[in-house]
Amino acid sequence: MPDQIAEFEALETPALILDEARMMRNIARLADHVGSKGCTLRPHLKTAKSVDVAKRLLTDGTGPATVSTLTEAEALAQAGVRDIIYAVGITPQKLARVARIRGAGCDLAVLLDSPAQAEAVVEASQRLGQAIPALIELDCDGHRSGLAPDDPALVTIGRILNDGAAELRGVLTHAGESYEVSGRSAHADCAEQERKAAVLAAQMLRDAGLPCPVVSIGSSPTAHAIENLDGVTEVRAGVYTFFDLFQAGIGVCEIDDIALSVLTTVIGHQKEKGWIITDAGWMAMSRDRGTANQAIDQGYGIVCDADGRPLSDLIVITANQEHGIIARRSGSVADLPELPLGTRLRILPNHACATAAQFDRYNVVPTERTAPLMTWRRFSGW
Amino acid sequence: MPDQIAEFEALETPALILDEARMMRNIARLADHVGSKGCTLRPHLKTAKSVDVAKRLLTDGTGPATVSTLTEAEALAQAGVRDIIYAVGITPQKLARVARIRGAGCDLAVLLDSPAQAEAVVEASQRLGQAIPALIELDCDGHRSGLAPDDPALVTIGRILNDGAAELRGVLTHAGESYEVSGRSAHADCAEQERKAAVLAAQMLRDAGLPCPVVSIGSSPTAHAIENLDGVTEVRAGVYTFFDLFQAGIGVCEIDDIALSVLTTVIGHQKEKGWIITDAGWMAMSRDRGTANQAIDQGYGIVCDADGRPLSDLIVITANQEHGIIARRSGSVADLPELPLGTRLRILPNHACATAAQFDRYNVVPTERTAPLMTWRRFSGW
Repeated sequence: MPDQIAEFEALETPALILDEARMMRNIARLADHVGSKGCTLRPHLKTAKSVDVAKRLLTDGTGPATVSTLTEAEALAQAGVRDIIYAVGITPQKLARVARIRGAGCDLAVLLDSPAQAEAVVEASQRLGQAIPALIELDCDGHRSGLAPDDPALVTIGRILNDGAAELRGVLTHAGESYEVSGRSAHADCAEQERKAAVLAAQMLRDAGLPCPVVSIGSSPTAHAIENLDGVTEVRAGVYTFFDLFQAGIGVCEIDDIALSVLTTVIGHQKEKGWIITDAGWMAMSRDRGTANQAIDQGYGIVCDADGRPLSDLIVITANQEHGIIARRSGSVADLPELPLGTRLRILPNHACATAAQFDRYNVVPTERTAPLMTWRRFSGW
Repeated sequence: MPDQIAEFEALETPALILDEARMMRNIARLADHVGSKGCTLRPHLKTAKSVDVAKRLLTDGTGPATVSTLTEAEALAQAGVRDIIYAVGITPQKLARVARIRGAGCDLAVLLDSPAQAEAVVEASQRLGQAIPALIELDCDGHRSGLAPDDPALVTIGRILNDGAAELRGVLTHAGESYEVSGRSAHADCAEQERKAAVLAAQMLRDAGLPCPVVSIGSSPTAHAIENLDGVTEVRAGVYTFFDLFQAGIGVCEIDDIALSVLTTVIGHQKEKGWIITDAGWMAMSRDRGTANQAIDQGYGIVCDADGRPLSDLIVITANQEHGIIARRSGSVADLPELPLGTRLRILPNHACATAAQFDRYNVVPTERTAPLMTWRRFSGW
């Protein structure tokens, strides 16, 4: 068995650590839940942004997948993924790039919620000589983009796509509200709201004589809580691949499901203040303070030893660019452990998407603990 | 004159835009202020992380410079910078890398505030056959690392370095408090606190028969406000190179000094809510909400047209990973402008260090407006 502590010692800190066994457990949990209902899971790669993760996350490695940037789509298409939805509203300027990715053999679909976008997709489809597929985005809870599920513009948009040179692929929604509520029952309510909105909109399109092959819903909280998938063809989710303190705070996972952490080194102390100072500041953790308004504020993260075991009541209370300040939680009476200069620690993050984005690679602790650490590249940018 | 709008149109969004003329004005302003007092300016590259910026920021391009990571030190040393302070507390694990950078001809100094660190630097200096220079960090206002300026440990540490194989280079402090107060007079008070702490500590070392050639103070707010530099040998500052809404909020710059912005594209609307949705979410802007507790909360940033002119009362009120939601400020009665699908906008960020770190390059609008856009690479990571 390799000496994991010695392998960590060879890493420059701060460094991003991924626990493959926890990740595989998270992947299996949602695949089993959605699969047991006979529905397709379309994982979102916006969190992982990694071909190595995609290989483990996607059915036979080829899809279906969701992405948040065309850079993700390009990297995944190049790695053999063949079925992708780019789930951010499309702009006319991006359509030539979409067509290039499609031309390389990947069925990349776009998202839109206005006649102007539909016309741009039709125009590009004509000009570029291929029917670009588009899904219509629905707003099921007022959080972001999308049409109300009973908006007559749905049919207008559907006709523009279907009657023009493009392809009407279906409808898609995302329950942003599911991040604001806690517990399985509340998330199941959000899931039902997603489902109802999507099914209603699909019906309106079909009633108008339009096709709607894809009915896509999902978020990490709703995907885990959903029971009734009638009329839904696929479920999307992303951050569950790694999980994080925010998801633990709303009850979607436990702390020990969190597969992502930041390895850091103790660089100093302010003993009379009870502070331990490390080299993982907000540049490493990201500025995401998603738990700030949850029942338990986790600061910039929960402090663990180098093996990933949480240290009693220690959190990163504040951060500068390259300094993390560790202290006991407010109200804690736990003893401050001796953590001398040079000690390696691991910090569990508020938000896996934001923290992972601060790094260009994962240092992966393999499921097979007798194997050495692996390095998986991340892609970034747009 | 090149058509800047057409050049922006060719960029994938979101994209980072740097206005060279504003940057050069910011650089000149502080260089003039510090230079007029006969003191040395040691700019911090933690914000820019760019060789092209360093060439314009550093005296004859070779230094002196400050960095926040050894990756910055390596990149700058490779580009010919010869005098660098790594201004984050050193760990034993990093000293071999420090020595490699020094071995390539760059006078890289480290920072520390404990006897344990000093012993590690002495041990490494012996082992690696070169005297590694170290500055002792002082805590002038309780914000982070460092010894109190009258702490007897200063002399203990100074002796370990000076009597051992290392080199005692001097003392260094940073007024974190200057970010918490607003206005030139308050910043001048913080500057005097920095100066007094550094001069007191230098005197204590000298009284003990120890050398203290470098007396280093600084932050962007204090560097601009300082009047009395007696006993100080150098001033450090970083974010002023670009400035941002946070610095404007505490009165160190005006909005139109901000040289950094994010180019984005309108991807949709929620008209009844008064929302304009763009493709610059928090992945582009960063999660930094530094103005949240200032007198004017700028949301995720001030919205400008493609030429960089602020649009009346529009800010990014909230952000998802790849969605920015623009609306009027709370209380505004300004008309919402027509910003159709595909419109390019520029967003001024809360915090230049955090926003710039989300990108791998600057798209630079040259001072000479007849020249085309330039691309400058950024480095990142540790």
